[in-house]
Amino acid sequence: MNHCAWRLNGLLFFALATISSPTLQSQSLPLVNGDRVIAHLKAMGEIGKDPAGGISRVAYSEADRQGREYVIGLMRAAGLTTSVDSAGNISGRLAGADATLPALIIGSHVDSVPQGGSYDGVVGSLGAIEVAQTLNEGHVALRHPLEVLIFQNEEGGLKGSRAISGEMREEELSQSTSSGKSVREGIAFIGGDPAHLADARRKSADIFAYLELHIQQGGSLSREKINIGVVEGIVGRSSWDVTIEGKANHAGTTPMSERHDALLAAAKFIEAVNREVTSIPGDQVGTVGRIQAIPGAYNVVPGKVILGLELRDLDDGRIKMVFDKVREDADQIARDSGTKFSFQQIGADRPALTDPRLRKVIADSASRLGLTTKLVRSGATHDAGSMSHLAPSGMIFVPSVGGISHAPEEFTEPQDVVNGVNVLLRSVLQLDSQKL
Amino acid sequence: MNHCAWRLNGLLFFALATISSPTLQSQSLPLVNGDRVIAHLKAMGEIGKDPAGGISRVAYSEADRQGREYVIGLMRAAGLTTSVDSAGNISGRLAGADATLPALIIGSHVDSVPQGGSYDGVVGSLGAIEVAQTLNEGHVALRHPLEVLIFQNEEGGLKGSRAISGEMREEELSQSTSSGKSVREGIAFIGGDPAHLADARRKSADIFAYLELHIQQGGSLSREKINIGVVEGIVGRSSWDVTIEGKANHAGTTPMSERHDALLAAAKFIEAVNREVTSIPGDQVGTVGRIQAIPGAYNVVPGKVILGLELRDLDDGRIKMVFDKVREDADQIARDSGTKFSFQQIGADRPALTDPRLRKVIADSASRLGLTTKLVRSGATHDAGSMSHLAPSGMIFVPSVGGISHAPEEFTEPQDVVNGVNVLLRSVLQLDSQKL
Repeated sequence: MNHCAWRLNGLLFFALATISSPTLQSQSLPLVNGDRVIAHLKAMGEIGKDPAGGISRVAYSEADRQGREYVIGLMRAAGLTTSVDSAGNISGRLAGADATLPALIIGSHVDSVPQGGSYDGVVGSLGAIEVAQTLNEGHVALRHPLEVLIFQNEEGGLKGSRAISGEMREEELSQSTSSGKSVREGIAFIGGDPAHLADARRKSADIFAYLELHIQQGGSLSREKINIGVVEGIVGRSSWDVTIEGKANHAGTTPMSERHDALLAAAKFIEAVNREVTSIPGDQVGTVGRIQAIPGAYNVVPGKVILGLELRDLDDGRIKMVFDKVREDADQIARDSGTKFSFQQIGADRPALTDPRLRKVIADSASRLGLTTKLVRSGATHDAGSMSHLAPSGMIFVPSVGGISHAPEEFTEPQDVVNGVNVLLRSVLQLDSQKL
Repeated sequence: MNHCAWRLNGLLFFALATISSPTLQSQSLPLVNGDRVIAHLKAMGEIGKDPAGGISRVAYSEADRQGREYVIGLMRAAGLTTSVDSAGNISGRLAGADATLPALIIGSHVDSVPQGGSYDGVVGSLGAIEVAQTLNEGHVALRHPLEVLIFQNEEGGLKGSRAISGEMREEELSQSTSSGKSVREGIAFIGGDPAHLADARRKSADIFAYLELHIQQGGSLSREKINIGVVEGIVGRSSWDVTIEGKANHAGTTPMSERHDALLAAAKFIEAVNREVTSIPGDQVGTVGRIQAIPGAYNVVPGKVILGLELRDLDDGRIKMVFDKVREDADQIARDSGTKFSFQQIGADRPALTDPRLRKVIADSASRLGLTTKLVRSGATHDAGSMSHLAPSGMIFVPSVGGISHAPEEFTEPQDVVNGVNVLLRSVLQLDSQKL
């Protein structure tokens, strides 16, 4: 990208010259400091480096605490007023011109899965700080207060953002986590106050809008060489433990015709799930990801199988429809094989649609930067899902090479990172000036 | 069964009066002491009683050692000369009239699976001692020496009998067992000498024939109310670890069309195994009894599956034929799903046919006792399988209620036990008098 840039009122502007989009007019746009955000990203990539590969900055670990300290330092350097809420979320605020207006919130998370990558969550977190710093350095006061929120423990079930939206249940505090600590111990460890978890809850009236930049956990942008994904919504996810009871029997002495093989019934069920999910048009997905056969010996016909079923879609009704069909199939398999199926719901995250006005703001901002865009859905969960229950929310995706995430190979080109942060800045500016 | 009995030459004889078989003529037959063998069975059922249910007299455990001591005591009381070979098998011998003749061997095992029953192995072991005691008390000297052999660790892979047939490999001594001890430690624990395992090996020339009484591990005799099963053979068993490699992926962000789901491929394979095994006439069985999906999370498309495949039949060629078909199916599934199948053979026990002359002796003996018989196959492995590689071998099955074995509920009616021991006695007497 060739451009000439100049500083005006402290903000870096540039006139676009030759850019991929032929329809683009040359115009003045504020820009973030791309080199700085890439340098921060690199520094963050040194915190929690796992000798076995990738980044292990799992929530509530020592590496997580170090990452959070680094973030708080960056926020202060950016001129933000920092605090940690009772749930352990990090907040950095910049005053707006009108103190009576609700805050415009931008953010993401900096915890990782074990042996994950350096981009998931971090691009959006450091990008949000960069946007605030760019505005602060440029002495550009927004009308709304700007708040950068770094949510704790996104990877372990959106704990921080769900505390803010009021969805986190008291009993979740007792859950164990990858760090070895319970959620309660973990929140205390990172400076929160688990005894007053409810204090972290926010009111809708206090939030103007929420915007999150994130790498795409999926390959469509990377494959189609699209710069920016405008997120249509975060798919809902329902999961079940499916228990199939047959009859355990000696594999040598039980004739085929006398068996009630729970694993054979499970195999038919796994095929049925795939058939039902793929037999209707749409982007819904269905997965059987875990399975246990009991007793689990070469020479015993399995008497019991427990498997994990997960269905996801943007449309809750479609999840229900597929599940109903799968249950009918299970009934038929049970009748045919003399087995018994039972379903226990494990999780039910509602789909979260982004706000159409925010989608438009993001798409416009990207267009003005000469970037190509595409409407995409997020198959992965995000803090924006929790925030969407409180306020109009939007998400900006940047390509992840090969669609890889949650792995050491996770990588986003520096230019794509900077593009995303610039779209975030531009969207913040545009949003701030309009009514929702 | 009504009968009048009398003693002649010290042996108990009885004249059959009203018995189910209408063709039966009244005739004189020697009989064992039924009350005594049932009392011994009951006493043995107290050794290794598991507080969690059933009998846990697993090989090389303290309970196994106690059971073996009880057996040695019974042998001595029966007038047998006892010894323990280097593999830990217990031998009890009774001299024959002609010391130059090879031994007629009868026996079974007294080790159990964890939480197993009181009849598997024990009926044949105590029955063999009862036969020897009956002959000894009746001062009936056979032509051949009579040897009662109690094989060690039948349940853990026929260790004792395979040491005798020379099939046990040196490296098996290092295998771990349910007792917590290695086979080597276990053999030393029960009084064997694992450093001289080869000394336990027998020569064919030293064995006239082998006969084993056992409960049927399967339901046909119990269901059809047949008194005695004349075993046609012990099915061969081949087992494999089947590894299916696909690609692990995020279950939310990976479209159905881009998946290489190892568990979905495994499901199709499990169905294919069932289809191939049941699509040809015969009694072959095929089982997938164990399965592991990796990584095994609700939200990850499984990248790898390892499952256990086992095929059994009396005909080795048929096992091979079914396996070849299953491999072809696997190739097709791999092509369709973009996965890779690999097969690693774990076990290969050859089928063991019983000797037709011994089958006839057993059937005749049962008939003369007024008992109904049926030719059956054994789907389970037995020490008789190892012995059949050395000498003409035969097996006598008695009904196990509901076909249950390897479970606390395992039960054989006292009358059925006594019937089996009487058929064993009668078969020994008849065999002793003929040439093989």
